[in-house]
This record gives sequence, C-alpha cells and structure tokens, in this order.
Amino acid sequence: MMDFVGTMANAPPPGYASPHDLALALRVLDELSLRIVSTDPATLRDYPGHAALVRPRSTEDVVRIVTVANAFRVPLVPWGGGTSLEGQVAGYEGRSICVDMSGMDQILEIHEDDGDLVCQAGATWDGINETLRAKGVPLFFPLDPGPGATIGGMIATGCSGTNAVRYGTARGEWFLNVTVVLPDASVIKTRRRARKSAAGFDLTRLFVGAEGTLGIVTEATLRLAPVLPTRVALAQFADVDGAVGAVQAVLNSPWGAHLQCVELMDDNSQYAPRVVREDPRTLIHVYACAVIRALNASSSPSAANYPALDTLLFKLQGPPAFICATASHIRATVAAHGCTHFQFAQSEEAAARMWAERKHALGAARAWVPGARGVGTDVCVPPSNLPRLVGETKRDLARAGITTSIVGHVGDGNFHAMLYYKNEEERKAVQEAAGRLVERAWSLGGTCTGEHGVGTGKKAYLEAELGEGTVALMRAVKKAVDPKGIMNPGKNSRRR
Amino acid sequence: MMDFVGTMANAPPPGYASPHDLALALRVLDELSLRIVSTDPATLRDYPGHAALVRPRSTEDVVRIVTVANAFRVPLVPWGGGTSLEGQVAGYEGRSICVDMSGMDQILEIHEDDGDLVCQAGATWDGINETLRAKGVPLFFPLDPGPGATIGGMIATGCSGTNAVRYGTARGEWFLNVTVVLPDASVIKTRRRARKSAAGFDLTRLFVGAEGTLGIVTEATLRLAPVLPTRVALAQFADVDGAVGAVQAVLNSPWGAHLQCVELMDDNSQYAPRVVREDPRTLIHVYACAVIRALNASSSPSAANYPALDTLLFKLQGPPAFICATASHIRATVAAHGCTHFQFAQSEEAAARMWAERKHALGAARAWVPGARGVGTDVCVPPSNLPRLVGETKRDLARAGITTSIVGHVGDGNFHAMLYYKNEEERKAVQEAAGRLVERAWSLGGTCTGEHGVGTGKKAYLEAELGEGTVALMRAVKKAVDPKGIMNPGKNSRRR
Repeated sequence: MMDFVGTMANAPPPGYASPHDLALALRVLDELSLRIVSTDPATLRDYPGHAALVRPRSTEDVVRIVTVANAFRVPLVPWGGGTSLEGQVAGYEGRSICVDMSGMDQILEIHEDDGDLVCQAGATWDGINETLRAKGVPLFFPLDPGPGATIGGMIATGCSGTNAVRYGTARGEWFLNVTVVLPDASVIKTRRRARKSAAGFDLTRLFVGAEGTLGIVTEATLRLAPVLPTRVALAQFADVDGAVGAVQAVLNSPWGAHLQCVELMDDNSQYAPRVVREDPRTLIHVYACAVIRALNASSSPSAANYPALDTLLFKLQGPPAFICATASHIRATVAAHGCTHFQFAQSEEAAARMWAERKHALGAARAWVPGARGVGTDVCVPPSNLPRLVGETKRDLARAGITTSIVGHVGDGNFHAMLYYKNEEERKAVQEAAGRLVERAWSLGGTCTGEHGVGTGKKAYLEAELGEGTVALMRAVKKAVDPKGIMNPGKNSRRR
Repeated sequence: MMDFVGTMANAPPPGYASPHDLALALRVLDELSLRIVSTDPATLRDYPGHAALVRPRSTEDVVRIVTVANAFRVPLVPWGGGTSLEGQVAGYEGRSICVDMSGMDQILEIHEDDGDLVCQAGATWDGINETLRAKGVPLFFPLDPGPGATIGGMIATGCSGTNAVRYGTARGEWFLNVTVVLPDASVIKTRRRARKSAAGFDLTRLFVGAEGTLGIVTEATLRLAPVLPTRVALAQFADVDGAVGAVQAVLNSPWGAHLQCVELMDDNSQYAPRVVREDPRTLIHVYACAVIRALNASSSPSAANYPALDTLLFKLQGPPAFICATASHIRATVAAHGCTHFQFAQSEEAAARMWAERKHALGAARAWVPGARGVGTDVCVPPSNLPRLVGETKRDLARAGITTSIVGHVGDGNFHAMLYYKNEEERKAVQEAAGRLVERAWSLGGTCTGEHGVGTGKKAYLEAELGEGTVALMRAVKKAVDPKGIMNPGKNSRRR
C-alpha cells in the first residue's frame, strides 16, 4: 500500500551512525565525490525521511558511497524512478542517505543481433524503448510497470505490468546479468551476457525482489523482444465471471500466443454508494470512460456511449493476418461468455491513446477524486479464483461504504484496488478493508502482493503468508550478505 | 563434463561423520524409516561413491533423513532421474547417503483452470506430460531436458532443453513454488500458488541451479502451457553461419512466436580424420542420418539421401493456418541464407519419430561408437557469436584429431559437443580440448555451461567465469543456509 510516511515505529537498532558520525560520513563523501551530496531541505522534501541525497554517476561513485556508509554504518536507500507503491524508497528515521540512481541512465551497449542491451540502473523502461525506436532498432524491453520506473527499481521490486500475459515478469529471464555493489563495497557481476547459463546459484534472481536490501544494482543486461504489430480491442460483459472465463479460454487455445495484454476494468455500479453520491466519478468510471472516449473518438457516432460494464481491454500482437484470425476467435469466445459489446480501436492512433490512458490511469484517478487520498494495493490469486475475489471484495467494500476502483491484469489473476479516503475515520476503514482483501486472497491460494512488492506496506503480512521458516531463510540470506544491515533497513523481510 | 568418478582429490573436511557415526546414523534411519535404507553393494553399484541409499516416500521421510544426517553430520546427495551430466549426483568419498527421490513421483493436484499442477520432486517431465495426455488435460509442462529427468533434478540443475526458444528455461517462471527440506530439517514453501508474487526475496529461484547444495526439494508447483498443434521441418545449409543467421532472422520477425524449437546439427565432414578413419559413424552422422531416415521414411523416394550438411530442425507451433504462413516465411528466410534443402515431415508420426530420435541422440551415439567413452560438454554464447564458436571449435578439434559431434539449441546460442576417447592419451587430449572450448566461449561473451550445470565437472571454471566476489557471495549464501555443509558437498560453488 502506498499510504506510508517515511518514519518507523520501531526504535533504531544500536549501532547505526550517530548524528555526529553521519555528518562526518557526509563530509567524507562530499570530499570524495564532489557535488554529489545534498542535505538541502528543499531538495530533501521530495525524498522524505532521508538525511541526505547522493546522485552517483557511475558504479565507482556507488562504490565510494557504500565504502563510506559501511565504515560509518549509515543506512543507504537506493531510489530509482520513485514510482514504487509500498514504501520501498522511504527514508530510515531521517538517518539514511538516499542514493538517487536516476542520473545513471545511460544505455551502454545495444546488441541488436543478440537481442540484448546493457544499461545503467537508472535508465527507465520507457526511455529505453523510446531510444530503441529512435535508433530504428526493431526490438523493445517488454516489462512495463508504472511510467518512469527505472531498471534498478524494476529489479528491486520484481515488477511486472500489462505485458506479463505474453512476456512474464521481472522474475523471469529478462535480466540476464546485473552489476551490484555489495554492502562491503565489492562489485560483482552475477553472470555473463549469454542468454542462458547454468553456472551456479541464480544470483541475478537473488537481487530481483530484494528491494535494495542486499546491495545496489548499478548496471544490467536486458534481453529484448522483437517489436510486433499490435491492435487493441475492447470487450464488455454483464459480469466479471464471463470476462475472466473468456480470457482463460483464449489463453489456453492455440490463439493465446497472440495475446500480449488483457486488462480488466470492473463496472462501478454495485459499490461505494456513500462516496459515489458525493462524487460519482470514481476511478473506474474515469478509467472506462477514458478508454471508451478514446475508442469512440475514432469510431462511428453510433458506437459511442458504451455503458460502464465489466470491460476487458485486449492487446493482440503478430503479423496482421494472424491478428485478424485471432480477433475472430476472440470475438466468438467472448460472445460465448456473455460479451455484450466488442470493438477494435479503428486506428493505431486511437489504440495508442487508449493504452496511454490505461498506463496513466493511476495519476488520472488521483486528480479525479478531489480531496481524497488513495491507498493502492494489489493481490494475486490463481486465475480461476479471480471472479470470486472480485465479487467478494466488491460486496465487502460496498458494506464498508468505501469508494474504490478495481482494475487487474486478468490474464495472471492479478488484482489492483484503489481505496479512497478523506479523513482519519475513512483511512482506518480503508486500512482494515485492505487487510481483509489480503486475507481473502490468501484464502483463495493467493499472495498479498502480485507485483507491487513488500516495502514497508506489506511487511506485516509476509510471515503469515509464507510461514516463519521461509521468512527466516530470507533473513539468514540478508544477514549473510549485509551483516551490518546498512542496505535499506526496515523493508521487505527485515524485522525492523 | 560427465567424465567424473565419485571420488574427490581433496582430504575430507574435519567433522563429517566417522565410519562409526555413519553406521549409527544408518541404524537410526533404518529404525525410524523402515525399509528405506540400503547398503547393499549390488544396489550401490548404480549410485557410485555413496555409503548408503535411502528412498523416501514423503516430505516427512525426507525430514527424518535430514534430521539424522544433520545430527550425525552425514553428507546427503539428492538423486533425481540420474540424467545429469556434470557429476551432480556423485557420491562424496563413499561417506554420503544418496537420497533417491525417484519414488516420490506422484502428481498431487492438477488445476486445469489455472494452468498449474502440484507434484512430488521425483516426478519426471515426460511422465507428467504422459499423464496429462492420458487424462485429456490440454496442457503440458514445456521444459524438456534429457528423457527421465525429474522435476527435482531439473530445479537443481536449472535445466532447459529444446523448447527453450519458445518457453525459456528452469530459471524462468515455470516453478511457481517449491517445498524444501532445509539442512536443519525445517520445511518451507517458497511461495503460494498464484502465478505472480512479489512477496519478498525470490526463494524459489534460490534453489534453481543450487544442485541440492541448499536443501532437498520435495514438492513443486509447476505452471503449464496449452498443448498446441506442431509441425517439424528440416533445413540444410552450406555452412553454420547461414543456419544461425536464418534462425535469428526468423526469431526477430513477427513469425518468431510460432517457433517452438530450433536445433542445429552440424555436418561431420571437416573434422576428426583419425578416429573417423577407424569408425566413420560418429554421432553427428548417426544423428543427422537418424533424422533424415525418419524424414525419408515418410516422404517420396526422390527426396531421400540428403547429404550430411549443417542442418536445422524446426518445430513450429500454433493453429494450422498460422503454421502454414510461418512455414512460408521460414522457407523464404532460409533460402535467403543459403539453405539447400527444406522439407516438412509429411505426417505427425514422422515428426514424432524425428523428434524422438533427436531427444534420444545421446544414448544412440554412445552405442554407436564402439569402445569409446564420451565427454559431453555444453557452453553458451550470445547467439551472434555461435557461428564463430562452432567454426573455431571444429578447426581446433580437427587439429587435435578428436572425434566429436556438435549439436545445439541454436535459438539460444547453446552449443553441445560430445568428445570421444578410447584410451588415456586421448582422454587427456579431450579434457584439454574441453577446457579450450570453455575459454573460447568466455572470449565470445559466453558461459562454461548453458544448461548442464556445474556439479563437479565445471567447478574449476566458476571463479574464472564469474569472478571471486560472485563465487564468494554464493559461498556466503551456502554457509548461511547450510552451516554444517551436509547438503551435496563438493559440488557447484563449494570449494571442496
């Protein structure tokens, strides 16, 4: 949940740098690394909970920073695009140094023939894809979390995105090799550049999902995929069961290989009566409307004014003839599952606009519910349990009078809810509802987080989800790699 | 390299069970676990280097075994299908207990709607797929290493296989969750069953590639893929460059999604003059001949008698209309890259026979070179460097007078060589050539092992490939998880 502030309830562990030592460490850093240290309060406002900000330009800069932090035992918190949603980059009690990696955003090598690329950790996935397009390289990096997310942050969180249906997640094989500065300031590469390697433990994956608690990733080799023609289609259903059933039927057919994305946007008719009365334009409405508006803008007048029903957004990929054949199959399948409207975006421009609205829905929604703050949360269940999860959650939130919007990467059983509140009482109700959502996901074989990670927001759920022994193993690994506990303390599987 | 014997050069580390304690441990096990302990020499002949064999039937059995081994500090070596090629299951100085998991071969749950399955670690991938077929479940598990490999062994090795072009490897997202008995005999599950989870460190992947050095995997949740129609085609080229170029051109096109496998079999015309004079039927000849024989058996008489050229074997997948369109594209592409013959298997039966010959080529080759032993080795390089690797290796082996066969998962840059010897002098030459092959792969950005793993055979290369710091990190993790060093000592990143 993104409803965090950068302070921790626990007392600091003994041994982190005193204010005096911290000041000393910063002075040493300042002398070593020129103007990469900032303690300017105006700058730090954007990095809450931190004592200082450093902006390294190279792996060598990061080595210097870690060397000093290790010597003085100063907590370090790596910062990528700042788009994480569970408090992963929150400061540690005003005593940490925030290592803002966004200046390390260079693409170092492009190997078009091998379908891979080497970049610094501060490069963003959308920036990389823009560069490849501009250079005429017919390849792209398919992981697509929030716009502006950096490669380092995507590795840290173990992210995914709308393309996961076709391309999987950050926990798959997209990161071939990472360069990491370990807590003792040594630098390692986890692997070589070959696509496959069975040379020992999978250290690349040790850092995927570790949220910067084991070291700072400074460079990565990414595998790329060929850019394929795509088309976008929208299908509306009388209920979520039909929508989810249709998706699984298509994915399990020979046509499934051409589904790049399937997004669910639920109707907003059944819940949140209280706040909806105050402001009927909740996120999902905005969302569906934005998509439908984009769609309608390019289609015939008679096709306009779709109702706010449970809606699927498909992105198909492949040679145009294959897309047409796949679309026919999808049209027949969704019809058999109760689809009431099915339509293709009529131009590439319309499709791009629709998808851009989808990708920026979070920001749009925040602006649309005036005066409200939102807790965004995600859970994931085996796909066949998704209709039950959506149905029960809607009823639960309606009973609690909470305004919400539900969207999801339905091909994977991944479910996002945005829960709004305007005052302390509502905030408490929202927190409780988010907790019930996690328990509901568990009871359906699911996880407390499908792609947002643990950070501080989901830390409390980790032992209950995985068991004490599993979390103890994470802690044993953490202790072995970072005995002084300087890397992003208080996050992920850390007790404090 | 599979040329190992179960003894180690190093002195035993202090502290492993003495012969007396080992006997005591076995007696305790015998009493605890009924007839699961064998020290019968005839039985142990198939498990070289081990003092005893246990055959657990459940996770609880494994817990009892690990409890006793931990108390008496007896080395444990998990054994799956016995198909590994780098000494992963070799005994430890006649002092270890071999934990044969092959009796734990049950499929526990099949979730057709979710596309996943829960099984015990001793189940084989081919057995699982046969069961799914027999039950009419239209799904399969796509990782396909050597026939008879078990799920536990596939996890341990971090395997791949011919399907990696389309489905990736064991290091991808096919293992959702594993149940592991840790060295302290505690039992953990790494995750829940949902397709995606960002709940903490990726502990599933911690065990993938660890070769049983961190614990014994007893159960796993596997993600399944829909069974699609396939067709098999063969293309022959004047040189490897053309073959590799054609493959990358297809994979990087919109048609690439329909390539399930691409296998390279090189010609056997340029090398091994000495042994070829003794016995001209080297593996690659057998291999290409077997495939061509299978192909010819079902085609017109005029199509028979293909020459032993560099040959690609394609497996295409998808709806029949898509396969036809993809095949037209492939035919045009391979023609542009110097293909001299291109032909589809004319029936499903012929295709199945061709692919079966491919999968069993290793066994067939062993029988075909009488009196010779073979060292099988694999390396992997970025795909564009594969032609250079193949060309230089052929020339090197020809100079050294070594009989060899080269096959490869060419879509991934993964290269297999079988090097034959008949006496000590030739064995030494083969070992040296295998070492030069690794160094050649490194110089081309590659790895000493693409999919066979480290075991004892590639241990010597690990530090040179990855650097001291990377291997030190593996050892730190190992020490944190298995402080007594009882899990598969002497393998992977272990010093001894």
